[in-house]
Amino acid sequence: MRKVYMDNASATATDPRVAKEMKPYLEKYYGNPASLHSWGEQAKNEIEKARQQVAALIGATPEEIIFTSSGSESNNLAIKGISAAGAKHGKHIVISAVEHFSVLQAAKRLASGGWEITEVGVDKNSMVSAKEVLAAVRDDTVLVSVMHANGEVGTIQPIAEIAAGLKDKKIAFHTDAVATAGTIPVDVKELGVDALSLASNQFYCPKGVAALYLRKGTRITPLIDGGIQEGGRRAGTENILGIVGMGAAAELAAAEMEERNKKIVPLRDRLIKGLLDTIDHAELNGHPKLRLPGNVHIRIEYIEGESMLIMLDMEGVAAASGSACTSRALKASHVLAAMGVPHEKIHGSLLFSLGKENNEKDVDHVIKVLGPIVTRLRSMSPLAQ
Amino acid sequence: MRKVYMDNASATATDPRVAKEMKPYLEKYYGNPASLHSWGEQAKNEIEKARQQVAALIGATPEEIIFTSSGSESNNLAIKGISAAGAKHGKHIVISAVEHFSVLQAAKRLASGGWEITEVGVDKNSMVSAKEVLAAVRDDTVLVSVMHANGEVGTIQPIAEIAAGLKDKKIAFHTDAVATAGTIPVDVKELGVDALSLASNQFYCPKGVAALYLRKGTRITPLIDGGIQEGGRRAGTENILGIVGMGAAAELAAAEMEERNKKIVPLRDRLIKGLLDTIDHAELNGHPKLRLPGNVHIRIEYIEGESMLIMLDMEGVAAASGSACTSRALKASHVLAAMGVPHEKIHGSLLFSLGKENNEKDVDHVIKVLGPIVTRLRSMSPLAQ
Repeated sequence: MRKVYMDNASATATDPRVAKEMKPYLEKYYGNPASLHSWGEQAKNEIEKARQQVAALIGATPEEIIFTSSGSESNNLAIKGISAAGAKHGKHIVISAVEHFSVLQAAKRLASGGWEITEVGVDKNSMVSAKEVLAAVRDDTVLVSVMHANGEVGTIQPIAEIAAGLKDKKIAFHTDAVATAGTIPVDVKELGVDALSLASNQFYCPKGVAALYLRKGTRITPLIDGGIQEGGRRAGTENILGIVGMGAAAELAAAEMEERNKKIVPLRDRLIKGLLDTIDHAELNGHPKLRLPGNVHIRIEYIEGESMLIMLDMEGVAAASGSACTSRALKASHVLAAMGVPHEKIHGSLLFSLGKENNEKDVDHVIKVLGPIVTRLRSMSPLAQ
Repeated sequence: MRKVYMDNASATATDPRVAKEMKPYLEKYYGNPASLHSWGEQAKNEIEKARQQVAALIGATPEEIIFTSSGSESNNLAIKGISAAGAKHGKHIVISAVEHFSVLQAAKRLASGGWEITEVGVDKNSMVSAKEVLAAVRDDTVLVSVMHANGEVGTIQPIAEIAAGLKDKKIAFHTDAVATAGTIPVDVKELGVDALSLASNQFYCPKGVAALYLRKGTRITPLIDGGIQEGGRRAGTENILGIVGMGAAAELAAAEMEERNKKIVPLRDRLIKGLLDTIDHAELNGHPKLRLPGNVHIRIEYIEGESMLIMLDMEGVAAASGSACTSRALKASHVLAAMGVPHEKIHGSLLFSLGKENNEKDVDHVIKVLGPIVTRLRSMSPLAQ
């Protein structure tokens, strides 16, 4: 059976060139970068090399990169750490309603500690209005956090426009760029942000390593206190194996991004057209144009997304219904709810996220198998009666 | 030149059998365990297998294991998370003066948020008195944290005795077992603890993965909020590569611990005797008997530890002066200070931590090269004049 992996928003296959760079750190080197001997020195040098590679991907300087263990950790460090460091100026933050769970829940945690959170809504395409974000800012606002793109519906937000509006204010601006960094051009100076989260499992590196960009001069309170690793901003012995991989993957992403997207965007558009042409009562979620290169998120009425996923898997196809972090929770998507999608239509959404390994045959296979799955499920579903 | 690695307290070489188990997760598998398809299912199963392996190493049940990214994260999660969850009962915690920096600094962070911290001292062997710990407990005490063994001076603490005294009180008891789990027998029921930190880079697995044991029923507030990974206690896509390694390394450690220590303990004693016999004005730090199998921590008067480390490195020997997490900070050891070692003697300490790959020739090489290094440094040192 043909195997088609179209869940690159959840995890990407490790590029063999990245694996090759990591292998010596699995099989040969093991020094602790904090140690004062040549084994340690070697590890320290490798981490600093990776820090440069990651910094170069987003137009930052190496000292502005803090390695973490996941995009969720980066988001928590940004939201909780910047807020804690700025608490004496006020206790208010602004976020969007379509943020990743790690931003939403971190904000909720702050709220339980007496902070006020303003959640700015989105339009039917999941687009945030820069004007509304700026209007939500108050004198006691310490932090604004709006994601660069939503990995679920693919909409790319007006980050630079928000940053421009915040420019003369003493408010830190964070963006969750997990879905964009390594996928589309991301430059921290062009975006104008003070903090930016990225994760390497989004660009062909294994899971377990990520980073937070923190603009020089931006104050932060660590989540993990202890040793002096990462400039005292994140204690703990470094995941060298993962960090070496992230560096290598960042360098490849910077070099090949344009070429990758030249291939992926037409595949995305072919899949969108194919699915909308063959399936009744189906609609594209998210912005029609300002969307991630590999994102195909469609809403199929009268069916449960989970049933489609299981049947797609039986046909060799890996897809998702929304964010990987919430898929096993089987909750209705807060992103679709914020877009105003009626509750009864939320559950039938499917996310196909294409990557650099996909091709036209993959796309045509998905188009071919999904139609009959939908027909079959609708014939059995009480929702369709 | 002979290369002798005796810095196993900072990092251990990855066991080739562990690397072999991890390799497919570098080169072949890449599913996100949260995904609802066979790629994800496979990853999820592997994590649950590793969870069982780690649980078995310490006599826990799999649901009691939370995977983290480092021993420091596990300690921060325990100290901050258990405190936050218990804040309504009081705002006091008890720790020992010789804890790892990640416990000390986490406690300091709580102190800046209005918590009271009682730091219990140690005797000249770095031993904590269970009686003193129990005497420090108050009606508003929420957490007691005393490390199982200090990785720097090697002393093993009376954890079970402290646990017995806390038994009928509603106080959580955490132990940092990073230096012991996988090295000597650790059983959470015999120790009687509610939470226990362990890190796999201490038992022949790459860095970047660790765990916190949390006894069923023990309440904790996450450090990283977001998705439902790790039972909602630690959000973020899992480091599957590392977790698979930790599982394999835990299984090997459980099976081979006795055999490893049968080899390591005589090497340790040979090194201690050899160094004390050949170097004047040298003393063993830590408890003479209740110490880690591979720990040789000696105090050499009239010299700087860092100079010795650099010259040892030139002779092919990797050692440490104290905790890896603080070595680059070049600060005097808080552990030795707590033991009452005079300030002028603290700086000349050396830590040789032996591992399963060391042999008699390694030990004899270190004994042979250290004497001349000490003689040479003393002839140049103003401290010796």
